[in-house]
Amino acid sequence: MVLDRKAVVLLSGGLDSATTLYIAGEEGFSTHAVSFRYGQQHTQELKSASEVARAAGAADHLIIPLDARLFKGSALTGPSAVPENRSPDEMASMIPPTYVPARNTVFLAMSLSYAEVIGARDIFIGVNAVDYSGYPDCRPEFIAAFGRLAELATKEAIEGRPARIHAPLLNMTKAQIIRRGLELGVDYSLTHSCYNPDTEGRSCGRCDACILRLSGFAENGMNDPVAYQPEMNNGL
Amino acid sequence: MVLDRKAVVLLSGGLDSATTLYIAGEEGFSTHAVSFRYGQQHTQELKSASEVARAAGAADHLIIPLDARLFKGSALTGPSAVPENRSPDEMASMIPPTYVPARNTVFLAMSLSYAEVIGARDIFIGVNAVDYSGYPDCRPEFIAAFGRLAELATKEAIEGRPARIHAPLLNMTKAQIIRRGLELGVDYSLTHSCYNPDTEGRSCGRCDACILRLSGFAENGMNDPVAYQPEMNNGL
Repeated sequence: MVLDRKAVVLLSGGLDSATTLYIAGEEGFSTHAVSFRYGQQHTQELKSASEVARAAGAADHLIIPLDARLFKGSALTGPSAVPENRSPDEMASMIPPTYVPARNTVFLAMSLSYAEVIGARDIFIGVNAVDYSGYPDCRPEFIAAFGRLAELATKEAIEGRPARIHAPLLNMTKAQIIRRGLELGVDYSLTHSCYNPDTEGRSCGRCDACILRLSGFAENGMNDPVAYQPEMNNGL
Repeated sequence: MVLDRKAVVLLSGGLDSATTLYIAGEEGFSTHAVSFRYGQQHTQELKSASEVARAAGAADHLIIPLDARLFKGSALTGPSAVPENRSPDEMASMIPPTYVPARNTVFLAMSLSYAEVIGARDIFIGVNAVDYSGYPDCRPEFIAAFGRLAELATKEAIEGRPARIHAPLLNMTKAQIIRRGLELGVDYSLTHSCYNPDTEGRSCGRCDACILRLSGFAENGMNDPVAYQPEMNNGL
Protein backbone atom coordinates (compact mmCIF):
# COMPACT_ATOMS: atom_id res chain seq x y z
CA MET A 1 0.00 0.00 0.00
CA VAL A 2 1.49 3.31 -1.10
CA LEU A 3 -0.61 5.70 0.93
CA ASP A 4 1.03 8.89 -0.18
CA ARG A 5 -0.21 8.27 -3.71
CA LYS A 6 -3.36 10.33 -4.00
CA ALA A 7 -6.22 9.64 -6.37
CA VAL A 8 -9.31 11.72 -7.10
CA VAL A 9 -12.39 9.49 -7.28
CA LEU A 10 -15.69 10.65 -8.73
CA LEU A 11 -18.37 9.50 -6.31
CA SER A 12 -22.07 9.82 -7.12
CA GLY A 13 -23.25 7.65 -4.25
CA GLY A 14 -24.36 4.94 -6.68
CA LEU A 15 -23.26 1.36 -6.90
CA ASP A 16 -20.67 1.85 -9.63
CA SER A 17 -18.80 4.77 -8.13
CA ALA A 18 -18.83 3.15 -4.67
CA THR A 19 -17.16 0.08 -6.16
CA THR A 20 -14.68 2.29 -8.00
CA LEU A 21 -13.75 4.02 -4.74
CA TYR A 22 -12.93 0.67 -3.15
CA ILE A 23 -10.93 -0.40 -6.23
CA ALA A 24 -8.83 2.77 -6.00
CA GLY A 25 -8.21 2.07 -2.32
CA GLU A 26 -7.29 -1.55 -3.07
CA GLU A 27 -4.76 -0.29 -5.62
CA GLY A 28 -3.00 1.57 -2.83
CA PHE A 29 -4.26 5.09 -3.40
CA SER A 30 -5.19 7.56 -0.73
CA THR A 31 -8.64 8.43 -2.07
CA HIS A 32 -10.01 11.96 -2.46
CA ALA A 33 -13.67 11.59 -3.30
CA VAL A 34 -15.58 14.32 -5.14
CA SER A 35 -19.33 14.63 -5.64
CA PHE A 36 -21.32 17.32 -7.38
CA ARG A 37 -24.50 19.15 -6.53
CA TYR A 38 -25.68 20.04 -10.03
CA GLY A 39 -29.37 20.56 -9.50
CA GLN A 40 -30.36 16.91 -9.23
CA GLN A 41 -33.83 16.73 -7.75
CA HIS A 42 -33.03 13.88 -5.41
CA THR A 43 -30.28 14.60 -2.95
CA GLN A 44 -30.39 11.12 -1.48
CA GLU A 45 -27.40 10.29 -3.69
CA LEU A 46 -25.23 12.95 -2.03
CA LYS A 47 -26.15 11.59 1.40
CA SER A 48 -25.21 8.13 0.16
CA ALA A 49 -21.95 9.46 -1.27
CA SER A 50 -20.98 10.85 2.13
CA GLU A 51 -21.76 7.56 3.86
CA VAL A 52 -19.86 5.54 1.27
CA ALA A 53 -16.82 7.85 1.49
CA ARG A 54 -16.78 7.46 5.27
CA ALA A 55 -17.20 3.68 5.15
CA ALA A 56 -14.43 3.35 2.54
CA GLY A 57 -12.00 5.40 4.61
CA ALA A 58 -11.58 8.09 1.95
CA ALA A 59 -8.95 10.69 2.89
CA ASP A 60 -11.54 13.34 2.18
CA HIS A 61 -14.81 13.98 0.38
CA LEU A 62 -15.64 17.22 -1.38
CA ILE A 63 -19.19 18.06 -2.44
CA ILE A 64 -18.87 20.65 -5.17
CA PRO A 65 -21.77 22.96 -5.99
CA LEU A 66 -22.36 23.61 -9.68
CA ASP A 67 -24.56 26.20 -11.31
CA ALA A 68 -27.82 24.39 -12.06
CA ARG A 69 -28.48 26.66 -15.07
CA LEU A 70 -25.86 24.65 -16.97
CA PHE A 71 -27.61 21.30 -16.57
CA LYS A 72 -31.25 22.04 -17.24
CA GLY A 73 -33.50 19.92 -19.37
CA SER A 74 -32.74 16.54 -17.89
CA ALA A 75 -35.29 14.39 -16.13
CA LEU A 76 -32.80 14.32 -13.24
CA THR A 77 -32.75 18.10 -12.87
CA GLY A 78 -36.29 19.01 -13.90
CA PRO A 79 -39.86 17.84 -14.18
CA SER A 80 -39.59 15.44 -17.17
CA ALA A 81 -40.69 11.89 -16.48
CA VAL A 82 -38.04 9.27 -15.79
CA PRO A 83 -38.57 6.35 -18.20
CA GLU A 84 -39.65 3.11 -16.59
CA ASN A 85 -39.36 -0.57 -17.33
CA ARG A 86 -36.96 -0.20 -20.27
CA SER A 87 -35.35 -3.39 -21.52
CA PRO A 88 -31.54 -3.60 -21.83
CA ASP A 89 -31.91 -3.29 -25.63
CA GLU A 90 -33.97 -0.13 -25.28
CA MET A 91 -31.39 1.30 -22.89
CA ALA A 92 -28.58 0.65 -25.34
CA SER A 93 -30.43 2.10 -28.32
CA MET A 94 -31.79 5.41 -27.08
CA ILE A 95 -30.37 8.12 -24.88
CA PRO A 96 -33.06 8.66 -22.25
CA PRO A 97 -34.34 11.97 -20.82
CA THR A 98 -32.25 11.27 -17.72
CA TYR A 99 -29.19 12.30 -19.78
CA VAL A 100 -27.60 15.40 -18.21
CA PRO A 101 -25.87 17.70 -20.74
CA ALA A 102 -22.11 17.03 -20.86
CA ARG A 103 -22.14 15.93 -17.23
CA ASN A 104 -19.12 13.64 -17.27
CA THR A 105 -17.10 16.16 -19.31
CA VAL A 106 -17.70 18.75 -16.59
CA PHE A 107 -17.08 16.28 -13.75
CA LEU A 108 -13.81 15.05 -15.27
CA ALA A 109 -12.66 18.59 -16.07
CA MET A 110 -13.21 19.66 -12.47
CA SER A 111 -11.49 16.53 -11.20
CA LEU A 112 -8.51 17.34 -13.41
CA SER A 113 -8.27 20.75 -11.85
CA TYR A 114 -8.69 19.40 -8.32
CA ALA A 115 -6.13 16.63 -8.94
CA GLU A 116 -3.55 19.19 -9.99
CA VAL A 117 -4.31 21.32 -6.91
CA ILE A 118 -3.83 18.45 -4.44
CA GLY A 119 -0.93 16.84 -6.29
CA ALA A 120 -2.77 13.74 -7.54
CA ARG A 121 -2.08 12.23 -10.96
CA ASP A 122 -4.79 9.59 -10.96
CA ILE A 123 -8.51 10.13 -11.51
CA PHE A 124 -11.02 7.30 -11.13
CA ILE A 125 -14.46 7.32 -12.71
CA GLY A 126 -17.01 4.52 -12.42
CA VAL A 127 -18.44 4.67 -15.93
CA ASN A 128 -19.63 1.46 -17.45
CA ALA A 129 -20.56 0.75 -21.05
CA VAL A 130 -22.08 -2.71 -20.71
CA ASP A 131 -25.11 -2.45 -18.40
CA TYR A 132 -25.78 1.25 -18.82
CA SER A 133 -28.34 3.73 -20.08
CA GLY A 134 -26.71 4.59 -23.40
CA TYR A 135 -25.20 7.88 -22.23
CA PRO A 136 -22.56 9.15 -24.69
CA ASP A 137 -20.16 10.16 -21.94
CA CYS A 138 -19.94 6.65 -20.49
CA ARG A 139 -18.39 5.09 -23.58
CA PRO A 140 -14.77 3.90 -23.93
CA GLU A 141 -14.09 6.33 -26.79
CA PHE A 142 -15.22 9.27 -24.66
CA ILE A 143 -12.95 8.24 -21.77
CA ALA A 144 -10.04 7.77 -24.20
CA ALA A 145 -10.63 11.22 -25.69
CA PHE A 146 -10.66 12.79 -22.26
CA GLY A 147 -7.40 11.01 -21.48
CA ARG A 148 -5.81 12.52 -24.60
CA LEU A 149 -7.11 15.96 -23.62
CA ALA A 150 -5.65 15.55 -20.13
CA GLU A 151 -2.23 14.86 -21.68
CA LEU A 152 -2.29 18.40 -23.11
CA ALA A 153 -4.33 20.38 -20.62
CA THR A 154 -2.24 20.98 -17.52
CA LYS A 155 1.06 22.30 -16.29
CA GLU A 156 1.75 18.87 -14.82
CA ALA A 157 1.17 17.30 -18.23
CA ILE A 158 3.58 19.69 -19.92
CA GLU A 159 6.14 18.84 -17.28
CA GLY A 160 5.82 15.13 -18.04
CA ARG A 161 3.22 14.07 -15.48
CA PRO A 162 -0.11 13.99 -17.30
CA ALA A 163 -3.17 12.91 -15.34
CA ARG A 164 -4.26 9.33 -15.85
CA ILE A 165 -7.96 8.53 -16.19
CA HIS A 166 -8.94 5.15 -14.72
CA ALA A 167 -12.29 3.63 -15.61
CA PRO A 168 -11.97 0.17 -14.07
CA LEU A 169 -15.63 -0.80 -14.58
CA LEU A 170 -15.79 0.16 -18.25
CA ASN A 171 -16.17 -3.35 -19.63
CA MET A 172 -17.75 -5.13 -16.68
CA THR A 173 -21.35 -6.27 -16.38
CA LYS A 174 -23.35 -5.01 -13.42
CA ALA A 175 -23.18 -8.51 -11.90
CA GLN A 176 -19.37 -8.53 -12.20
CA ILE A 177 -19.17 -5.06 -10.64
CA ILE A 178 -21.23 -6.18 -7.65
CA ARG A 179 -19.17 -9.36 -7.24
CA ARG A 180 -15.94 -7.37 -7.28
CA GLY A 181 -17.35 -4.84 -4.81
CA LEU A 182 -18.44 -7.55 -2.40
CA GLU A 183 -14.92 -9.02 -2.47
CA LEU A 184 -13.61 -5.56 -1.53
CA GLY A 185 -16.11 -5.06 1.27
CA VAL A 186 -18.44 -2.49 -0.29
CA ASP A 187 -21.58 -2.06 1.82
CA TYR A 188 -24.13 -1.70 -0.96
CA SER A 189 -26.87 -0.88 1.55
CA LEU A 190 -25.27 2.59 1.76
CA THR A 191 -25.45 3.23 -1.98
CA HIS A 192 -28.28 4.83 -3.89
CA SER A 193 -28.96 4.40 -7.62
CA CYS A 194 -32.68 5.11 -8.14
CA TYR A 195 -33.67 8.06 -10.37
CA ASN A 196 -37.08 8.30 -8.77
CA PRO A 197 -37.03 7.55 -5.05
CA ASP A 198 -39.99 8.30 -2.79
CA THR A 199 -39.86 10.88 -0.02
CA GLU A 200 -38.29 8.33 2.31
CA GLY A 201 -35.47 7.66 -0.18
CA ARG A 202 -36.79 4.23 -1.15
CA SER A 203 -36.04 3.06 -4.69
CA CYS A 204 -38.70 2.74 -7.38
CA GLY A 205 -37.54 -0.52 -8.95
CA ARG A 206 -38.65 0.62 -12.42
CA CYS A 207 -36.13 3.21 -13.67
CA ASP A 208 -33.05 2.19 -15.68
CA ALA A 209 -30.80 2.50 -12.64
CA CYS A 210 -33.00 0.22 -10.52
CA ILE A 211 -33.50 -2.33 -13.28
CA LEU A 212 -29.76 -2.62 -13.96
CA ARG A 213 -28.99 -2.86 -10.28
CA LEU A 214 -31.70 -5.38 -9.46
CA SER A 215 -30.64 -7.67 -12.27
CA GLY A 216 -27.00 -7.42 -11.17
CA PHE A 217 -27.87 -8.59 -7.67
CA ALA A 218 -30.22 -11.26 -9.03
CA GLU A 219 -27.45 -12.67 -11.24
CA ASN A 220 -25.38 -13.03 -8.10
CA GLY A 221 -28.27 -14.86 -6.42
CA MET A 222 -28.74 -12.02 -3.95
CA ASN A 223 -31.24 -9.49 -2.80
CA ASP A 224 -30.40 -5.82 -3.27
CA PRO A 225 -29.89 -4.54 0.29
CA VAL A 226 -31.40 -1.09 -0.32
CA ALA A 227 -35.03 -0.35 0.53
CA TYR A 228 -37.61 -0.43 -2.26
CA GLN A 229 -41.03 1.14 -2.29
CA PRO A 230 -43.68 -1.13 -0.74
CA GLU A 231 -45.22 -2.36 -3.97
CA MET A 232 -41.77 -3.49 -5.23
CA ASN A 233 -39.72 -6.47 -4.24
CA ASN A 234 -35.94 -6.24 -4.16
CA GLY A 235 -35.09 -8.40 -7.09
CA LEU A 236 -35.73 -12.01 -6.23
CA MET B 1 -27.03 37.88 -40.27
CA VAL B 2 -28.67 34.70 -39.02
CA LEU B 3 -29.79 35.79 -35.60
CA ASP B 4 -31.39 32.56 -34.53
CA ARG B 5 -28.00 30.86 -34.61
CA LYS B 6 -26.80 30.92 -31.03
CA ALA B 7 -23.18 30.79 -29.94
CA VAL B 8 -21.73 30.47 -26.46
CA VAL B 9 -18.77 32.86 -26.03
CA LEU B 10 -16.31 32.60 -23.15
CA LEU B 11 -15.84 36.13 -21.87
CA SER B 12 -13.19 36.97 -19.27
CA GLY B 13 -13.45 40.72 -19.66
CA GLY B 14 -9.99 40.87 -21.20
CA LEU B 15 -8.97 42.14 -24.58
CA ASP B 16 -8.91 38.76 -26.35
CA SER B 17 -12.30 37.51 -25.26
CA ALA B 18 -13.91 40.90 -25.95
CA THR B 19 -12.59 40.75 -29.52
CA THR B 20 -13.82 37.17 -29.83
CA LEU B 21 -17.31 38.22 -28.75
CA TYR B 22 -17.43 40.81 -31.53
CA ILE B 23 -16.11 38.28 -34.06
CA ALA B 24 -18.88 35.85 -33.13
CA GLY B 25 -21.42 38.64 -33.54
CA GLU B 26 -19.93 39.62 -36.90
CA GLU B 27 -20.29 36.01 -38.05
CA GLY B 28 -24.03 36.29 -37.49
CA PHE B 29 -24.40 34.54 -34.16
CA SER B 30 -26.69 35.57 -31.36
CA THR B 31 -24.06 35.59 -28.61
CA HIS B 32 -24.51 34.03 -25.16
CA ALA B 33 -21.57 35.17 -23.10
CA VAL B 34 -20.37 33.20 -20.08
CA SER B 35 -17.91 34.30 -17.40
CA PHE B 36 -16.70 32.44 -14.34
CA ARG B 37 -16.12 33.46 -10.74
CA TYR B 38 -13.45 30.93 -9.80
CA GLY B 39 -11.81 32.61 -6.85
CA GLN B 40 -9.85 35.20 -8.81
CA GLN B 41 -8.66 37.87 -6.40
CA HIS B 42 -9.47 40.72 -8.71
CA THR B 43 -13.09 40.95 -9.69
CA GLN B 44 -12.51 43.94 -11.95
CA GLU B 45 -12.46 41.49 -14.87
CA LEU B 46 -16.04 40.35 -14.16
CA LYS B 47 -17.20 43.95 -14.06
CA SER B 48 -15.45 44.50 -17.39
CA ALA B 49 -17.03 41.35 -18.80
CA SER B 50 -20.50 42.67 -17.97
CA GLU B 51 -19.77 46.02 -19.61
CA VAL B 52 -18.31 44.40 -22.71
CA ALA B 53 -21.28 42.02 -23.04
CA ARG B 54 -23.67 44.96 -22.84
CA ALA B 55 -21.70 47.06 -25.32
CA ALA B 56 -21.48 44.15 -27.78
CA GLY B 57 -25.22 43.52 -27.64
CA ALA B 58 -24.86 39.98 -26.33
CA ALA B 59 -28.19 38.14 -26.07
CA ASP B 60 -27.29 37.32 -22.49
CA HIS B 61 -24.39 37.08 -20.08
CA LEU B 62 -24.10 34.42 -17.40
CA ILE B 63 -21.60 34.73 -14.57
CA ILE B 64 -21.09 31.22 -13.26
CA PRO B 65 -19.79 30.64 -9.74
CA LEU B 66 -17.23 27.85 -9.38
CA ASP B 67 -15.93 26.23 -6.23
CA ALA B 68 -12.67 28.04 -5.47
CA ARG B 69 -11.21 24.94 -3.78
CA LEU B 70 -10.68 23.49 -7.26
CA PHE B 71 -8.44 26.31 -8.47
CA LYS B 72 -6.11 27.00 -5.58
CA GLY B 73 -2.40 27.54 -5.90
CA SER B 74 -2.41 30.10 -8.68
CA ALA B 75 -1.13 33.63 -8.29
CA LEU B 76 -4.53 34.69 -9.61
CA THR B 77 -6.45 32.92 -6.84
CA GLY B 78 -4.00 33.21 -3.94
CA PRO B 79 -1.17 35.18 -2.43
CA SER B 80 1.71 34.16 -4.76
CA ALA B 81 3.44 37.02 -6.53
CA VAL B 82 2.51 37.78 -10.12
CA PRO B 83 5.71 37.80 -12.23
CA GLU B 84 6.67 41.18 -13.63
CA ASN B 85 8.59 42.49 -16.61
CA ARG B 86 8.98 39.13 -18.35
CA SER B 87 10.20 39.22 -21.93
CA PRO B 88 8.19 37.47 -24.67
CA ASP B 89 10.82 34.69 -24.73
CA GLU B 90 10.47 34.14 -21.00
CA MET B 91 6.70 34.02 -21.36
CA ALA B 92 6.92 31.38 -24.07
CA SER B 93 9.42 29.22 -22.19
CA MET B 94 7.99 28.94 -18.69
CA ILE B 95 4.48 28.49 -17.36
CA PRO B 96 4.11 31.28 -14.79
CA PRO B 97 2.48 31.10 -11.34
CA THR B 98 -0.56 32.82 -12.81
CA TYR B 99 -1.43 29.46 -14.39
CA VAL B 100 -4.79 28.28 -12.99
CA PRO B 101 -5.14 24.47 -12.83
CA ALA B 102 -7.04 23.11 -15.84
CA ARG B 103 -8.99 26.35 -16.15
CA ASN B 104 -9.81 26.24 -19.85
CA THR B 105 -10.74 22.55 -19.64
CA VAL B 106 -13.31 23.42 -16.98
CA PHE B 107 -14.53 26.53 -18.80
CA LEU B 108 -14.95 24.68 -22.12
CA ALA B 109 -16.63 21.71 -20.41
CA MET B 110 -19.18 23.99 -18.77
CA SER B 111 -19.72 25.85 -22.03
CA LEU B 112 -20.38 22.53 -23.74
CA SER B 113 -23.05 21.75 -21.20
CA TYR B 114 -24.58 25.21 -21.43
CA ALA B 115 -24.52 25.14 -25.24
CA GLU B 116 -26.47 21.91 -25.25
CA VAL B 117 -29.00 23.34 -22.77
CA ILE B 118 -29.71 26.46 -24.85
CA GLY B 119 -29.52 24.73 -28.23
CA ALA B 120 -26.24 26.26 -29.42
CA ARG B 121 -23.73 24.28 -31.45
CA ASP B 122 -20.95 26.85 -31.56
CA ILE B 123 -18.57 27.75 -28.74
CA PHE B 124 -16.08 30.63 -29.07
CA ILE B 125 -12.95 30.94 -26.95
CA GLY B 126 -10.39 33.73 -27.25
CA VAL B 127 -7.24 31.71 -26.65
CA ASN B 128 -4.12 32.84 -28.38
CA ALA B 129 -0.84 30.97 -28.77
CA VAL B 130 1.34 33.73 -30.22
CA ASP B 131 1.51 36.59 -27.71
CA TYR B 132 0.60 34.58 -24.60
CA SER B 133 1.92 33.43 -21.25
CA GLY B 134 2.80 29.85 -22.16
CA TYR B 135 -0.33 28.32 -20.64
CA PRO B 136 -0.80 24.71 -21.81
CA ASP B 137 -4.53 25.14 -22.32
CA CYS B 138 -4.13 27.98 -24.83
CA ARG B 139 -2.32 25.90 -27.44
CA PRO B 140 -3.78 24.71 -30.77
CA GLU B 141 -3.30 21.04 -29.85
CA PHE B 142 -5.32 21.53 -26.66
CA ILE B 143 -8.17 23.19 -28.54
CA ALA B 144 -8.11 20.42 -31.16
CA ALA B 145 -8.24 17.74 -28.46
CA PHE B 146 -11.21 19.43 -26.82
CA GLY B 147 -12.92 19.53 -30.21
CA ARG B 148 -12.44 15.78 -30.58
CA LEU B 149 -13.79 15.22 -27.08
CA ALA B 150 -16.84 17.36 -27.89
CA GLU B 151 -17.57 15.13 -30.88
CA LEU B 152 -18.10 12.23 -28.48
CA ALA B 153 -19.39 13.85 -25.32
CA THR B 154 -22.98 14.89 -25.85
CA LYS B 155 -26.38 13.65 -26.94
CA GLU B 156 -26.29 16.27 -29.70
CA ALA B 157 -22.98 14.87 -30.93
CA ILE B 158 -24.34 11.31 -31.04
CA GLU B 159 -27.28 12.60 -33.03
CA GLY B 160 -24.99 14.18 -35.60
CA ARG B 161 -24.68 17.72 -34.27
CA PRO B 162 -21.41 17.88 -32.34
CA ALA B 163 -20.41 21.18 -30.82
CA ARG B 164 -17.87 23.19 -32.79
CA ILE B 165 -15.07 24.95 -30.93
CA HIS B 166 -14.00 28.26 -32.52
CA ALA B 167 -10.71 29.88 -31.49
CA PRO B 168 -10.46 32.71 -34.02
CA LEU B 169 -7.48 34.42 -32.34
CA LEU B 170 -5.34 31.30 -32.03
CA ASN B 171 -2.67 32.33 -34.50
CA MET B 172 -2.93 36.10 -34.34
CA THR B 173 -0.47 38.47 -32.71
CA LYS B 174 -1.77 40.82 -30.06
CA ALA B 175 -1.40 43.71 -32.49
CA GLN B 176 -3.49 41.87 -35.11
CA ILE B 177 -6.16 41.08 -32.52
CA ILE B 178 -6.44 44.75 -31.55
CA ARG B 179 -6.58 45.83 -35.19
CA ARG B 180 -9.37 43.37 -35.90
CA GLY B 181 -11.24 44.44 -32.78
CA LEU B 182 -11.04 48.10 -33.70
CA GLU B 183 -12.49 47.30 -37.14
CA LEU B 184 -15.40 45.58 -35.39
CA GLY B 185 -15.99 48.44 -32.96
CA VAL B 186 -14.65 46.93 -29.73
CA ASP B 187 -14.36 49.58 -27.02
CA TYR B 188 -11.11 48.47 -25.41
CA SER B 189 -11.50 51.03 -22.65
CA LEU B 190 -14.11 48.66 -21.16
CA THR B 191 -11.76 45.67 -21.09
CA HIS B 192 -9.45 44.62 -18.28
CA SER B 193 -6.35 42.44 -18.64
CA CYS B 194 -4.08 43.26 -15.69
CA TYR B 195 -3.26 40.49 -13.20
CA ASN B 196 -2.37 42.99 -10.52
CA PRO B 197 -4.59 46.08 -10.57
CA ASP B 198 -4.63 48.59 -7.72
CA THR B 199 -7.67 49.19 -5.55
CA GLU B 200 -9.07 51.57 -8.15
CA GLY B 201 -8.83 48.91 -10.86
CA ARG B 202 -5.91 50.60 -12.62
CA SER B 203 -3.48 48.33 -14.46
CA CYS B 204 0.08 47.69 -13.26
CA GLY B 205 1.86 47.79 -16.63
CA ARG B 206 4.35 45.12 -15.54
CA CYS B 207 2.54 41.74 -15.52
CA ASP B 208 2.48 39.49 -18.61
CA ALA B 209 -1.05 40.58 -19.47
CA CYS B 210 -0.17 44.30 -19.35
CA ILE B 211 3.09 43.84 -21.27
CA LEU B 212 1.41 41.91 -24.08
CA ARG B 213 -1.43 44.39 -24.26
CA LEU B 214 0.75 47.50 -24.16
CA SER B 215 2.98 46.22 -26.93
CA GLY B 216 -0.06 45.33 -29.04
CA PHE B 217 -1.37 48.86 -28.83
CA ALA B 218 2.11 50.31 -29.38
CA GLU B 219 2.54 48.26 -32.58
CA ASN B 220 -0.69 49.84 -33.79
CA GLY B 221 0.72 53.27 -32.92
CA MET B 222 -1.88 53.78 -30.23
CA ASN B 223 -2.23 54.34 -26.54
CA ASP B 224 -3.98 51.68 -24.52
CA PRO B 225 -7.25 53.37 -23.45
CA VAL B 226 -7.42 51.72 -20.00
CA ALA B 227 -6.11 53.50 -16.89
CA TYR B 228 -2.65 52.64 -15.62
CA GLN B 229 -1.24 53.25 -12.17
CA PRO B 230 0.30 56.73 -11.85
CA GLU B 231 3.94 55.66 -12.15
CA MET B 232 3.20 53.89 -15.45
CA ASN B 233 2.59 55.30 -18.86
CA ASN B 234 0.16 53.62 -21.20
CA GLY B 235 2.51 52.29 -23.80
CA LEU B 236 3.88 55.13 -25.87
